[in-house]
Amino acid sequence: MKNKPSVTSGVNTKIPAEILEKFNMPAYFESWNPRVRPRDHMSRNEMQKNSNKIVSLEQSIIKSGLKDGMTISFHHHFREGDHVVNMVMDKLAKMGFKNLNIAPSSLSNVHAPLIEHIKNGVIKSISTSGLRGKLAEEISHGLMEEPVVFRSHGGRAAAIKEGHVKIDVAFLSASSCDYVGNANGYSRDGEEKSVCGSMGYAIVDSRYADKVVILTDNIVGYPNTPFAIAESNVDYIVKVDEVGDASKISSGATRFTTNPHDLLLAHTAAEAVVNSGYFRDGFSLQTGSGGASLAVTRYIKDYMIAQNIKASYALGGITGQMVALHEEGLIKKLLDVQSFDLVAAQSLKNNRFHHQIAADYYADPFERGSAMNLLDVVILSALECDVDFNVNVLTGSDGVIRGAIGGHPDTAAGAALSVIVCPLIRGRIPCIVEKVNTVVTPGYSVDLIVTDQGIAVNPRRPEIKEKLIAANLPVVDIHELREKAERIVGKPENLPWGDKVVGVVTSRDGAVLDVIYNVENK
Amino acid sequence: MKNKPSVTSGVNTKIPAEILEKFNMPAYFESWNPRVRPRDHMSRNEMQKNSNKIVSLEQSIIKSGLKDGMTISFHHHFREGDHVVNMVMDKLAKMGFKNLNIAPSSLSNVHAPLIEHIKNGVIKSISTSGLRGKLAEEISHGLMEEPVVFRSHGGRAAAIKEGHVKIDVAFLSASSCDYVGNANGYSRDGEEKSVCGSMGYAIVDSRYADKVVILTDNIVGYPNTPFAIAESNVDYIVKVDEVGDASKISSGATRFTTNPHDLLLAHTAAEAVVNSGYFRDGFSLQTGSGGASLAVTRYIKDYMIAQNIKASYALGGITGQMVALHEEGLIKKLLDVQSFDLVAAQSLKNNRFHHQIAADYYADPFERGSAMNLLDVVILSALECDVDFNVNVLTGSDGVIRGAIGGHPDTAAGAALSVIVCPLIRGRIPCIVEKVNTVVTPGYSVDLIVTDQGIAVNPRRPEIKEKLIAANLPVVDIHELREKAERIVGKPENLPWGDKVVGVVTSRDGAVLDVIYNVENK
Repeated sequence: MKNKPSVTSGVNTKIPAEILEKFNMPAYFESWNPRVRPRDHMSRNEMQKNSNKIVSLEQSIIKSGLKDGMTISFHHHFREGDHVVNMVMDKLAKMGFKNLNIAPSSLSNVHAPLIEHIKNGVIKSISTSGLRGKLAEEISHGLMEEPVVFRSHGGRAAAIKEGHVKIDVAFLSASSCDYVGNANGYSRDGEEKSVCGSMGYAIVDSRYADKVVILTDNIVGYPNTPFAIAESNVDYIVKVDEVGDASKISSGATRFTTNPHDLLLAHTAAEAVVNSGYFRDGFSLQTGSGGASLAVTRYIKDYMIAQNIKASYALGGITGQMVALHEEGLIKKLLDVQSFDLVAAQSLKNNRFHHQIAADYYADPFERGSAMNLLDVVILSALECDVDFNVNVLTGSDGVIRGAIGGHPDTAAGAALSVIVCPLIRGRIPCIVEKVNTVVTPGYSVDLIVTDQGIAVNPRRPEIKEKLIAANLPVVDIHELREKAERIVGKPENLPWGDKVVGVVTSRDGAVLDVIYNVENK
Repeated sequence: MKNKPSVTSGVNTKIPAEILEKFNMPAYFESWNPRVRPRDHMSRNEMQKNSNKIVSLEQSIIKSGLKDGMTISFHHHFREGDHVVNMVMDKLAKMGFKNLNIAPSSLSNVHAPLIEHIKNGVIKSISTSGLRGKLAEEISHGLMEEPVVFRSHGGRAAAIKEGHVKIDVAFLSASSCDYVGNANGYSRDGEEKSVCGSMGYAIVDSRYADKVVILTDNIVGYPNTPFAIAESNVDYIVKVDEVGDASKISSGATRFTTNPHDLLLAHTAAEAVVNSGYFRDGFSLQTGSGGASLAVTRYIKDYMIAQNIKASYALGGITGQMVALHEEGLIKKLLDVQSFDLVAAQSLKNNRFHHQIAADYYADPFERGSAMNLLDVVILSALECDVDFNVNVLTGSDGVIRGAIGGHPDTAAGAALSVIVCPLIRGRIPCIVEKVNTVVTPGYSVDLIVTDQGIAVNPRRPEIKEKLIAANLPVVDIHELREKAERIVGKPENLPWGDKVVGVVTSRDGAVLDVIYNVENK
């Protein structure tokens, strides 16, 4: 029929040469494309168990192509219970790696062993949301050559997406993973050995890292649905004894408070929210880590019931408190980027409106529809606030690093109303000061500072001030609070800063907000 | 303390110039980055309703930057009930667009109005999984200058991911969408106006298209969780009267059969599967569209109960039959790239192990862990099969296009056992032939052809042949089947092909499998 030049394909069809040329495709032959798996007739349960993705930790490192000077990442969903950062760093040290850049979503007390790896040159630089404990102290005292770069959760997600943080290999712990790599922080199929709930921060790493290694203590049958991380983003799977101690997820900053001082602050903050004008049916809220801010939920609940107000969603680090309100029908949906306790992790597993979200969905600064931008109210804690409403959640009154940025500046900027709860003084330390040691959240993003001595309203929000006064709430001037704090405990002494920059605090949108200098005496 | 040059930031911190240089960042100033939304104090329910993403269809087209000659896409989850392709194409025609390339996931009878747009030069080329009805007939008779490029669902996903199909603007219908763009094929919040269930094919478009327009008849409050498409992938939202007629999702190829001939085929196929060696506890299966293949589930069920066998998952176009087995505990999980009927759509909404998956997760040919590659058994239909086990699901015996590739070649190649159900003859037409009119699935990927006159086993699978014979199943040689068909209805006449290529059939991995010529007489 056709006399034009043609190519005979592997299925005995004649393909006109001009068609192949026009569409720039070859004629089909069986197995012409080496990227396609040849047919495999093995029973799929057997095939799964022979998955060549499952390797030892050392093999995963070798196969990943990791080289000295590259960047690796981790997530911190197990918080103080994390086993994986130390496990992987020890292995890398033994294997002789040097000059690695590590870019975990955050670091905690449990990561003190990194000190040795820094001293031995295994770790060259760190980018993180926070540092705590011994590691933080040593770094504050000048342990590292390179300053630590601090990023908020939203800022980190954006930096990864836009290539400012280029992850070569991500080592991500998972509470469940099937043979091909579908991974999650829980498993609907049964009991996990170690559960962490949402893997929101890790999802971004899995999408953008060159190579992704899942470490898990629970390999399950395919398909591990629902999954946080899809198999197509996973290169290797490493079976370990235990990825983390789930009982330590809820520790420190996310622990349920019974401190009466915190509860008083929480109660006042709840009253401020209720009278702010934003407390309406369908409002949305987030409570950040820190006992007082997390505790606000308990008091808001009573007002919700009394005024028949239901929230459309709660966001962020989700707690058992939030879950309780959700299960009582007071909060319609939960958007969970990080489960702050085991109740939250179990709820994510079981509740159909408790939804796992990735860090960029949560707080990408460049995305107008990020969940944080749809928040009516966020309640956050502080180590210090200053008269310009700047907030410090990173360095202590001694200048030593002892915290994490987290989603603080993201949600403060995103929410219609941002509320900081902060005592006037802690022990002998003033918390309302002339100038915070380290600016983490710019005053521009902070509306209310709720203290045990009154509520300071940012002058940018006169309408809120009026509303709180009308509700007979104790509105005070921020300068008065500072003076009062000084009268009680005296003016804070100048800190013994050295002249070495040990930390660089970035804004969520990629500028430098502040630097942290070394502290000279120990 | 520091005498080095520094820059004072907008929060009154001093940033050493060398730090700014080292990290290549500016010092922070409020609103320094125009990409960040300034703080917005509006109540979030009000802000949502003022979403600037919500525009008219015409505005969405203008704002998308669409130009003559560009490529647009659609999905076919509403099948014969789709309203969006015609609505958008009519609008584009009215607005004067020309030479558009359209790349829907598939097209159906309902899209006959595209004929006029082709004639008028609005549409220049089509890339699709299938064509049916009047549009298909006209194209088969030479309507278009450019041949239609046919891709499988997996092949399309890969072509989009790898840039071979570059979508400028995707117009995607959704059964629910919130004010910022989180969209889904159902809504857990209440009754949808038009439900389609999974939006698996559309998810890929939403990720890779330059601009994404969601058309919806159901704008819901934020957050529309669970969602198929995340707001960050959505540029514009268009409210329309009705995106589709859900009652027509289950039509034609996905309709529940009561045809006794189909049921006989289905029963024989079930027996072949049960005796193939793959019917074990934890096996996985898919049934493709077509009455007989979908009906296999009904018969397999009895064997599952009798032998106490449970499936790990069912994949693909999910049907009410599959849902019934899932709800009875016989199929543990459902992976749904497309809901074939309303029961499936409702189950996706309600069942916690019924999971929506994207087309690439389903069938990306270059991903070893694609769900299709984990299939033990797939049962598929055919228009014709030939003695080399090649299958045609695209052109009729008259050479006219009347079908769709779908996931046929993807799942046939991926599964450990691929079973084709096909009658020996249909009316006066032989279905087992010397050479299929159009090769869609290469014989390499086809293991069994189950007919009403016996089961042909691909010589590549002698071990399966032995098993079926041992089970006293009617194993026959494929050539015998062809001869038998010819004896009954005679040798098919040569088709009146012209010499214009009207269709190019691609393999899932990007080669040309076959071409379709025009049919000369009408």
